[in-house]
Amino acid sequence: MSKLRFRISMSLDGFVAGPDQSLEQPLGVGGERLHEWVFPLEAWRRPHGLEGGVVNESTPVMEEELSHIGATIMGRNMFGGGPGPWNTASPWNGWWGSNPPFHHPVFVLTHHAREPLVMEGGTRFVFVTEGIEHALAQARRAADGKDVALAGGAQAARQYLRAGLVDEMQLHLAPVLLGAGERLFDHADALRGLTLAKATPAPGVVHLKFTRG
Amino acid sequence: MSKLRFRISMSLDGFVAGPDQSLEQPLGVGGERLHEWVFPLEAWRRPHGLEGGVVNESTPVMEEELSHIGATIMGRNMFGGGPGPWNTASPWNGWWGSNPPFHHPVFVLTHHAREPLVMEGGTRFVFVTEGIEHALAQARRAADGKDVALAGGAQAARQYLRAGLVDEMQLHLAPVLLGAGERLFDHADALRGLTLAKATPAPGVVHLKFTRG
Repeated sequence: MSKLRFRISMSLDGFVAGPDQSLEQPLGVGGERLHEWVFPLEAWRRPHGLEGGVVNESTPVMEEELSHIGATIMGRNMFGGGPGPWNTASPWNGWWGSNPPFHHPVFVLTHHAREPLVMEGGTRFVFVTEGIEHALAQARRAADGKDVALAGGAQAARQYLRAGLVDEMQLHLAPVLLGAGERLFDHADALRGLTLAKATPAPGVVHLKFTRG
Repeated sequence: MSKLRFRISMSLDGFVAGPDQSLEQPLGVGGERLHEWVFPLEAWRRPHGLEGGVVNESTPVMEEELSHIGATIMGRNMFGGGPGPWNTASPWNGWWGSNPPFHHPVFVLTHHAREPLVMEGGTRFVFVTEGIEHALAQARRAADGKDVALAGGAQAARQYLRAGLVDEMQLHLAPVLLGAGERLFDHADALRGLTLAKATPAPGVVHLKFTRG
């Protein structure tokens, strides 16, 4: 069966977003420091339509992460638009611009129903109100034999981890402290049997890949 | 000048001890999981007077950690004996047995004065009541050109980190969750300019060495 593969950047003190997240600052105060390792990479810039960039030890990790993915799941906050019902008079299309970097179906967990959004470049946002298992089943069907990526944020990730539904986790450990914000792990059993399979040091980050023993 | 070198094992969720620490369970509930990587090592067993053990990627890290150290600093809890004044009728000599694995002077931070304790094998416990800077000055003198090790626990470590006195930090990151307990890092500026210099994956642990850029 296709795997659910989760990836996220986390600080040394366990935060995946800084404090005071808002529409203007979706990563919270200092949250961009979690991602500084990725922005210079050619492997990140190309799928985002940008020229140039470096190749380093993170490159094969990124390439593996992006390969064999047929669908993505994300939480409402990661899609964008803030809490509460959608503003259907002027619907917000998320943070991702007119041509999002996914190029496959993206299932957004939400409490508020909404028609699918078809974007340029093959990305289609589908809004799922029936919960995480339903979203996973839909994503698996859409992935058509490929794997499903769980993109975050922390709240969606904690739900899937708690349910034991994550087959693989790639933690990008940024050697910085945020001091406050949103934690990924909230109890001792959150790994639910995932164990460290590989650690890959790279400039500004250590990649920690967890799999089911 | 001789460096202050700090080493500690930390869980993926940022704890250096589990919850409910006590005299019977000084590492707290589950705290021994932080150290499972070290016990099988020949490089750990030998200084503790034990035969056998394995050699792996952790071995050179341990050897570097133990080399060129002329004195050690530790907190009262790590020495052992619980809070409050020393029981001078039946003085507790700490967790470390009659022949502790240090073989050099060890300066114990405490609020309660006590005569030095001379142990077998060259270890001498000196109790310092005048604070962390005084302890460091004494330890540097005793180290006689070598470096000073800061052995922990978390409270002592946080004080030295906060004061910007740590020159080098070796974090042994254990890929486990404790869920609760004592955190090493309590605010965003706790690294005080220490940056990741080297990451070394090894069985059951990832060694993260921080130095002053």
